[in-house]
Amino acid sequence: MREVLGNIVRSKILNIVQQDINDLADLGIKAKLAVVIVGNDPSSKVYVRSIEKLCLKMNLLFSLHQIDASTKEIELFNSIKTLNNDKSVHGILCQFPLPINFKNEIVTENISPFKDVDSISPANIAKWATGKYSFIPCTPYAVLEILGHYNIQTSGKEIIILGRSHTVGRPLSILLSNPTFNATVTLCHSKSENLQAITRRADILISAIGKANFVTESFLKKDCTIIDVGINYIEDNTHPQKGYVVGDVDLSSVKDFPCNLTPVPGGVGPVTISTLLLNTLKAARLQLTR
Amino acid sequence: MREVLGNIVRSKILNIVQQDINDLADLGIKAKLAVVIVGNDPSSKVYVRSIEKLCLKMNLLFSLHQIDASTKEIELFNSIKTLNNDKSVHGILCQFPLPINFKNEIVTENISPFKDVDSISPANIAKWATGKYSFIPCTPYAVLEILGHYNIQTSGKEIIILGRSHTVGRPLSILLSNPTFNATVTLCHSKSENLQAITRRADILISAIGKANFVTESFLKKDCTIIDVGINYIEDNTHPQKGYVVGDVDLSSVKDFPCNLTPVPGGVGPVTISTLLLNTLKAARLQLTR
Repeated sequence: MREVLGNIVRSKILNIVQQDINDLADLGIKAKLAVVIVGNDPSSKVYVRSIEKLCLKMNLLFSLHQIDASTKEIELFNSIKTLNNDKSVHGILCQFPLPINFKNEIVTENISPFKDVDSISPANIAKWATGKYSFIPCTPYAVLEILGHYNIQTSGKEIIILGRSHTVGRPLSILLSNPTFNATVTLCHSKSENLQAITRRADILISAIGKANFVTESFLKKDCTIIDVGINYIEDNTHPQKGYVVGDVDLSSVKDFPCNLTPVPGGVGPVTISTLLLNTLKAARLQLTR
Repeated sequence: MREVLGNIVRSKILNIVQQDINDLADLGIKAKLAVVIVGNDPSSKVYVRSIEKLCLKMNLLFSLHQIDASTKEIELFNSIKTLNNDKSVHGILCQFPLPINFKNEIVTENISPFKDVDSISPANIAKWATGKYSFIPCTPYAVLEILGHYNIQTSGKEIIILGRSHTVGRPLSILLSNPTFNATVTLCHSKSENLQAITRRADILISAIGKANFVTESFLKKDCTIIDVGINYIEDNTHPQKGYVVGDVDLSSVKDFPCNLTPVPGGVGPVTISTLLLNTLKAARLQLTR
């Protein structure tokens, strides 16, 4: 097994981000990302802290909008509307999952498509669903950038995707079978029969199901590339942080198998934050022309 | 080869349509479908005549809006806007392809999502792309109804779709892999490698590429079901009508193969018009509650 690292892709993207920031500064614009969190989901908070840190490092404006889980949905609605109308804000990201008393539609139906940097509004979904995307959702975007950077052929190849979520598996299945990538894509899920026989066809296997150690050697074809999008937290009292994060792939099973693998951590994750900044700068440019 | 006929499915749907028409009549509503044609595409005209005939038979109001191909796009825009605002119109269908001097977006971006019976507006695309569809596009809807009527299992099964069009292949690939149908779907297209090896995995093969005689016996697994969505016009001067219509499947090649096949004509086509009426009545109900 050979590791396909995310950091080198992230660095390349951040160079583009830096150039974009400079170009916008020449036009007197300082791009700003606003992040909305509802409640206290700990992994959301960890993720948002990494976004904030990277924005600070890149000199991109950042604001955090924390909403209490005990408030009413109207608070979230108002927050989204205020950010939509705030001319100093270019990108808006709302962290999911929301607490159960909040409907996702409060965000997806109301966020401005021009500031919707994770592409969750109906207008933007309709674009990526029909190959006319303006914003690619951040995690799928990171996967596409990794495939592109490492020059991993997609045209005519078989890509098997595990997991049909609306934020990762579904958009990737659509984007990768569009004419830009031209892959033959199969989308698998919990009800798929003969799963290992199907995944063994994959030139590229993308796992986004969030089950630790799910993908073993018997899922793989020789020389395939595995993109591990899983982020699974394993509690472990013997560990200094009382736990650690792993992907969907069972490393002990695949370590001697001839394949390429994006590790977790260090694979898709770090690239995702850089594609979020890329989308924020795209949003800033989009608002220039409105 | 055993034929899976569309007429029996159509009859069943038309019974539901009749019941719906009666129920709406009790509320004092007479549902109306408006069809827009731009230019003189002959197969569009044939199709629209069959819609008109069926509306007449079912006692559903129908209006035809013919726009000259030599006019400006604003004419089409105005026509769509007028139909959106006309309270007596419940469903709007615009025939594609448009002449090359007309952009599809004039229709897709402006048609009211509440009257959009072929589900081409961004709001409705975003719904079917994320499993929350209100209108299912008519041809995919017909395919789903055929599978349902003949009790053809989809859950966990392998479905291979040929063709990635935004009106047939793409929506079917999404709908069939959603939890309602739970199939493992592979979407193939002109750049797919080893195509016959892939289609031979299919429990259900859906062909929507529009190439006469493309699918032969060597594409098939024993006992598969083939849904032939192709409509290909073959010119033939020896034929009384100077030509005839065939699907994508080479009948002479598959006739002795153990499989189920929707014939062309007589398979998906007749069901499609009945799902269009079903969507028109759904639109009429939707407008009741607005």
